[in-house]
Amino acid sequence: MKADAATRAAELSGSAVAGDRLALARLLTAVENHSDVAEAALRRLYPTAGRAHLVGITGPPGSGKSTLVAALIAEVRKAGRTVAVIAVDPSSPITGGALLGDRVRMQAYAGDDGVFIRSMASRGHAGGLAPTSTAAAAVLDAAGFDLILVETVGTGQSEVEVAAMADTTVVLEAPEMGDEVQAIKAGLLEVADLVVVNKGDKPGAQRTAAQLRAMLVASPPRAVDPAVGPGGVPAGTPGGDDPARPRPKRPDVLITTAATGEGVPELLAALDRHRSVGRAGESSGARLARAEAHVWAIVTDRMRARLHDASHAAATASLLTEVAEHRLDPYSAADRLLDEVGEG
Amino acid sequence: MKADAATRAAELSGSAVAGDRLALARLLTAVENHSDVAEAALRRLYPTAGRAHLVGITGPPGSGKSTLVAALIAEVRKAGRTVAVIAVDPSSPITGGALLGDRVRMQAYAGDDGVFIRSMASRGHAGGLAPTSTAAAAVLDAAGFDLILVETVGTGQSEVEVAAMADTTVVLEAPEMGDEVQAIKAGLLEVADLVVVNKGDKPGAQRTAAQLRAMLVASPPRAVDPAVGPGGVPAGTPGGDDPARPRPKRPDVLITTAATGEGVPELLAALDRHRSVGRAGESSGARLARAEAHVWAIVTDRMRARLHDASHAAATASLLTEVAEHRLDPYSAADRLLDEVGEG
Repeated sequence: MKADAATRAAELSGSAVAGDRLALARLLTAVENHSDVAEAALRRLYPTAGRAHLVGITGPPGSGKSTLVAALIAEVRKAGRTVAVIAVDPSSPITGGALLGDRVRMQAYAGDDGVFIRSMASRGHAGGLAPTSTAAAAVLDAAGFDLILVETVGTGQSEVEVAAMADTTVVLEAPEMGDEVQAIKAGLLEVADLVVVNKGDKPGAQRTAAQLRAMLVASPPRAVDPAVGPGGVPAGTPGGDDPARPRPKRPDVLITTAATGEGVPELLAALDRHRSVGRAGESSGARLARAEAHVWAIVTDRMRARLHDASHAAATASLLTEVAEHRLDPYSAADRLLDEVGEG
Repeated sequence: MKADAATRAAELSGSAVAGDRLALARLLTAVENHSDVAEAALRRLYPTAGRAHLVGITGPPGSGKSTLVAALIAEVRKAGRTVAVIAVDPSSPITGGALLGDRVRMQAYAGDDGVFIRSMASRGHAGGLAPTSTAAAAVLDAAGFDLILVETVGTGQSEVEVAAMADTTVVLEAPEMGDEVQAIKAGLLEVADLVVVNKGDKPGAQRTAAQLRAMLVASPPRAVDPAVGPGGVPAGTPGGDDPARPRPKRPDVLITTAATGEGVPELLAALDRHRSVGRAGESSGARLARAEAHVWAIVTDRMRARLHDASHAAATASLLTEVAEHRLDPYSAADRLLDEVGEG
């Protein structure tokens, strides 16, 4: 089995790097499935990756992400560079896809070898979405794409983390969005290297950009958690391993109209500028965060596999049942599981 | 330190169980911070929990979750039962809260000891949102609340997981929502035990309910992932450990108008019914999933702590740097880290 996987991985990686798009698509499927082929392929390809500029693009529903990505593809191609897109789709792997409208439009590039587009479901990734998309980006990077765009809907923790793990994170906004969206926005802004107000031809675009600039200048050092319960006390520090940490530099705010292409050349120039600045040191933070998420996902996968393998499965199941029935607390159960694994 | 934490935990748990709301709020803060006090308190309280009915309520922005939760609180109180709410807020712990509108309305219950409301930021939880909210629910359960409502915005993976981990998961919809929301909905429906069309006084409510019933009856066994890339192949099976697994029974569809209270007594009755059915066996699946997520989060916390402790931190940092610089692949790094921990 393992030897077969290695052979298959060697074949697929060789073909993918040589430009075979079908082999590349199959490798990405292997990555999504965490298969042995993916592991063997990544072991081969990883050392040849690290050259591409990984750009995360996120924003609330309705901010025009897909349209902007399409415009950015056109701009990148005009400059003679190649681009791959990982579109993280909030639909489910079970009920099937949706949001196909704009994606189908991107099919216009199906005949162009300098463009590769891949959708990835946002749910059902064992070990998390961020490690899976990081692995997929490494494959596309090894396959030689200059720019890799990871597009996510910035409304959930994992989606934001994915975008935040890029070398450059672009947060998209649109003029005059509702109140609840506004709230989501606040969380998004923290991870932004660049903020883009899209739909620049709509009334209110300039005002929205001005408000965002003001928000970013004001950016308070730390506000408290809105504890609403009687006697609620402010929540404490967020987890130290949150990859969505605030960026050190205040992001620029640009205005684009993706539908007409206005502002898109300026956006590409800003991406390039951020990358060259980042290379001097800052982006290594994002690269370390990415490496940590990826390695950590593999460590936990291996641990989980050990706990569920033939020699431990029964003990694990019985401990979890005890916890589910409140006969044992979860800390004691965790300690016993760690002992199990240590012995095994 | 540890002894101090145990003493403090004993004090706070004792007071919280005796009805001291400030102590309860402090315990929940400890849980959010993953402090030693939280661990000691949960070790004490966990075996006394397991009595409450844990209900997850999720739905897209604009479906009226907070209003429905407020109406449900009123209904539960009318029946002489007590209720606690964990409102998972998509705002950030850094930039500060938002979405306060409806939450502030809930302050109306501040004088009522049978109601307890707590907001929890959706980001910044080391180890994930689901384990943290599960731990918080266990504390509220031990404190004696009959019903615990966990309210999340159902737009991100972690938020959906949180709601799906409840004994009973309610998915809220509103008539005539946009296309992108529609897509999110498809993913949500899979985790529903009950589907509620809120804003029942709006035109289209009956039609939306009928459409949802049709969707649920049609519910295809499994559709493929929308791979849009040239040569894209359908993605494979989702992770086997996805807690957001489809429920075995087809959910009922109810209509409510939370603003006027219409349909809310029927919703409470449906919740009670689902619970009594669930007790016969089905809900144990949700309880096992909750136990597993909780225990697993503690296992990984402990592992991570070991990798970053004094004796391993330098080796860990150097391995991650090698991966970030693509001098080492992440699988080899993971294997070396696991060896490290095994030896330590």
